[in-house]
Amino acid sequence: MTPEEFRRYGRQVVDFIADYQERIESYPVLSRALPGEVLAGLPEHPPEEGEGFEAVLADMERVVMPGITHWQHPNFYAYFPANASGPAILGELLSAGLGVQGMLWATSPACTELETRVMDWLAELLDLPARFRSDGPGGGVIQDSASGAALVAILAAMHRADGGASGRGGVTGRRTLYVSSQTHSSLEKAARMTGIGAANVRVVDVDPGTLAMDPAHLDALLTEDAAAGALPVLVCATVGTTSTTAIDPVRAIGEVCRRHGVWLHVDAAYAGVAAVCPEFRWINDGLAEHADSYSTNPHKWLLTNFDCNAMWVADREALLGALSILPEYLRNRASASGDVLDYRDWQIPLGRRFRALKLWSVIRWYGAEGLREHVRTGVRLAQDLAAEVAADPGFELLEPHPFGLVCFRPLWDDLDGDAADTETLRLMERLNASGELYLTHTKVSGRVLLRMAIGAPATTGDHVRGAWKLIRAEAAAAGPASG
Amino acid sequence: MTPEEFRRYGRQVVDFIADYQERIESYPVLSRALPGEVLAGLPEHPPEEGEGFEAVLADMERVVMPGITHWQHPNFYAYFPANASGPAILGELLSAGLGVQGMLWATSPACTELETRVMDWLAELLDLPARFRSDGPGGGVIQDSASGAALVAILAAMHRADGGASGRGGVTGRRTLYVSSQTHSSLEKAARMTGIGAANVRVVDVDPGTLAMDPAHLDALLTEDAAAGALPVLVCATVGTTSTTAIDPVRAIGEVCRRHGVWLHVDAAYAGVAAVCPEFRWINDGLAEHADSYSTNPHKWLLTNFDCNAMWVADREALLGALSILPEYLRNRASASGDVLDYRDWQIPLGRRFRALKLWSVIRWYGAEGLREHVRTGVRLAQDLAAEVAADPGFELLEPHPFGLVCFRPLWDDLDGDAADTETLRLMERLNASGELYLTHTKVSGRVLLRMAIGAPATTGDHVRGAWKLIRAEAAAAGPASG
Ligand SMILES: Cc1ncc(COP(=O)(O)O)c(C=O)c1O
Ligand SMILES: Cc1ncc(COP(=O)(O)O)c(C=O)c1O
Repeated sequence: MTPEEFRRYGRQVVDFIADYQERIESYPVLSRALPGEVLAGLPEHPPEEGEGFEAVLADMERVVMPGITHWQHPNFYAYFPANASGPAILGELLSAGLGVQGMLWATSPACTELETRVMDWLAELLDLPARFRSDGPGGGVIQDSASGAALVAILAAMHRADGGASGRGGVTGRRTLYVSSQTHSSLEKAARMTGIGAANVRVVDVDPGTLAMDPAHLDALLTEDAAAGALPVLVCATVGTTSTTAIDPVRAIGEVCRRHGVWLHVDAAYAGVAAVCPEFRWINDGLAEHADSYSTNPHKWLLTNFDCNAMWVADREALLGALSILPEYLRNRASASGDVLDYRDWQIPLGRRFRALKLWSVIRWYGAEGLREHVRTGVRLAQDLAAEVAADPGFELLEPHPFGLVCFRPLWDDLDGDAADTETLRLMERLNASGELYLTHTKVSGRVLLRMAIGAPATTGDHVRGAWKLIRAEAAAAGPASG
Repeated sequence: MTPEEFRRYGRQVVDFIADYQERIESYPVLSRALPGEVLAGLPEHPPEEGEGFEAVLADMERVVMPGITHWQHPNFYAYFPANASGPAILGELLSAGLGVQGMLWATSPACTELETRVMDWLAELLDLPARFRSDGPGGGVIQDSASGAALVAILAAMHRADGGASGRGGVTGRRTLYVSSQTHSSLEKAARMTGIGAANVRVVDVDPGTLAMDPAHLDALLTEDAAAGALPVLVCATVGTTSTTAIDPVRAIGEVCRRHGVWLHVDAAYAGVAAVCPEFRWINDGLAEHADSYSTNPHKWLLTNFDCNAMWVADREALLGALSILPEYLRNRASASGDVLDYRDWQIPLGRRFRALKLWSVIRWYGAEGLREHVRTGVRLAQDLAAEVAADPGFELLEPHPFGLVCFRPLWDDLDGDAADTETLRLMERLNASGELYLTHTKVSGRVLLRMAIGAPATTGDHVRGAWKLIRAEAAAAGPASG
């Protein structure tokens, strides 16, 4: 494709996206495609000769769009948001246009140094501890996802715990991780991938009311395991759990970790970015004293297209010990000098895109004020919704709901627990099938709740009110209690 | 950013990229930035108020571009190419514009099904075994990188080898991997990350001439290790090694693997895509009978922007066994039906971008013919260069050089081995500092060789001849033997 063709088609794609943004509400939020439908719309064999890009754009409309579930739709409430935004899309485009691969500082110094700067900016915006800044022993890095960050944290923690023995000789003996029933599944997956094993993931009790991890039980498990000869590797505390945005007591957990000499990873994938607002800085309590690693996702609630996880470590030594490797073909003068960071040693894969461009574009376009405004809007809409739910005798609201997630369920008065759950799930499926909105569910104390996560930049009060009206109406149509 | 603003700035970014493509040769290939220079050009603090996107574009010119090493420059010969192309950039832009997250089929059916189709297309284009196609027990998936694919392969292999015991209970006992001295470092890194341990990576001998893995030695090591009670997990054969594009005898290695019941992973990160050309299909020999997993990088030599690794497995059972996990909040009717694929269970992270769009755009824009033409051009230019090097008495050429990589060194007649190596490295640094081209080095039998990897779509015969002229002139200026 010549530069002139690129200009022409580039404009078409830009217009396609702008048009999409303008008409996104005309689509059903949840795709109505049946299994195999998109596949059947695509030729079985690749083309022998090249085609114009118009053909791709035509097929975007014909085949792809009907198979899209619209994450950017203002009535997408299903999972935590995966915010896209104009500046992030353009940052990703700049990154693709340059086509550099920043595995080493030398393979594009700007790719490394812009990332370092932007991660320091983000640490400042979130008021994270000074020791996470790049000018000390710690530092920040962009990972593909919170899952990837957790995996990296476990490997670094294991390296620190056993002096690198498992990296060299393999895992021997029992190593343990500490999570709660509310911790994201990526921790268990990481346990399976790192040779620790799912059975060695210890599930710490939670407070049945707040669903927050119980530090005393953590302490007891750590003591018991160490006495039994296990090597505790890492404790994962969550700030804003996936299911209900519960908040583990980081400071108290950190004190336990410190006493036992165990690595504390804080997973704030969704909620961490709320700290752009001073009124949410309380979620950082305990980080400065106790967190060895911390991760939050600009690709969830901070307007930066997936993939962009922000991870910091208090001390990069263990991380580099766990992950760096230097074959001949990657040796170079800059790396040998020790004056530069090579981010390949901070992550699982070798190669890396220039992801800092999108985060930089977002921070500059919105500014600190704009980011705060975005978070505050999501929280306000969620709080307004929660007030409506609380005021409705036909529904039960889960408390607390400090961020943008609201969990609730209809009260199906004449139904027992399991039957009520079935009815709630049926309601959800009907709502999702309507195309008007998209919700998911979770289980708390064995009971099904609807999860409504607010935070897309396009979502307004009208959208949330409209969604709530529909939910009430559908519930009322199905059951006597919801009137 | 409103859709109208997006249109305006989008055009500016498209023009920025088209301009960049037009003037790329005006930049030094290797960035001249000193450590800290880009960092110093960026404000220490994030902006309080948002700025126009013009500000970002202005800083792209001022701060970012001087810190870019130009991977798309026609005289970038340093690492294997990381081809960008117009259609790939636009595919990435479409993906960012839609902003969907395809962790589950349900979260955007098109994201999954287009990937399935495109991976089947690519399998057909490369003439890969039928059992890699999605309509049987196997299938293809896009991974972030060949490193990620190798990690996934090891986890699947371990699951098959121990029936999932290590995933459940952690690694116990000695597990072993088999590579050669020429295998990519990502395998050793994966051994460290999976609890196998670097010391349990067994290095199989290579033929000193071809640098190909010796199947007889592999056989001996497997026998020895099994007898000693180790559990052999995976053998990695490479088609096109990083250092010199050496080719392991996949069929012979596969026969050994089969006898020992060990998983065969074939890493063809760079060279695998050459099989778009019938004359290169010999590199697939043995795959149909023996490969359990296979990986090649469209993000290297097949015009698809990083990240896009193509991985296939012959049987997805072990892979799903190793990597799937199902918390409540990811349960949904489509997944439960078994009628759909959820690619999150095929990879390390949970979330995923819609990367199939860029591969689809590339295959459609170029067609099979265009892809073949691209590979053939790279190979032809490399063979022409190799002929020049071979004809020059001042240089030694490494044979064979079947693809786009040519390795050679000046003969510094009056210098012994180490001194000659130092001189070769100095030559390389002078050449790279010139800004005219960018090369790397490797070591073969302890001696330093220059690596010149040809394959950028912008590279022509004139570029390669110009580069060769410069190399000869610089070498001649430094040493008597190169005249
Ligand atoms: C608390 C928490 N941790 C981790 C994750 C996983 O995020 P990612 O998709 O970035 O891996 C999520 C996703 O919802 C989450 O809520
Ligand atoms: C043979 C081989 N395997 C793996 C890799 C790693 O590729 P990636 O950056 O996709 O992980 C390379 C990169 O050069 C390679 O040459």
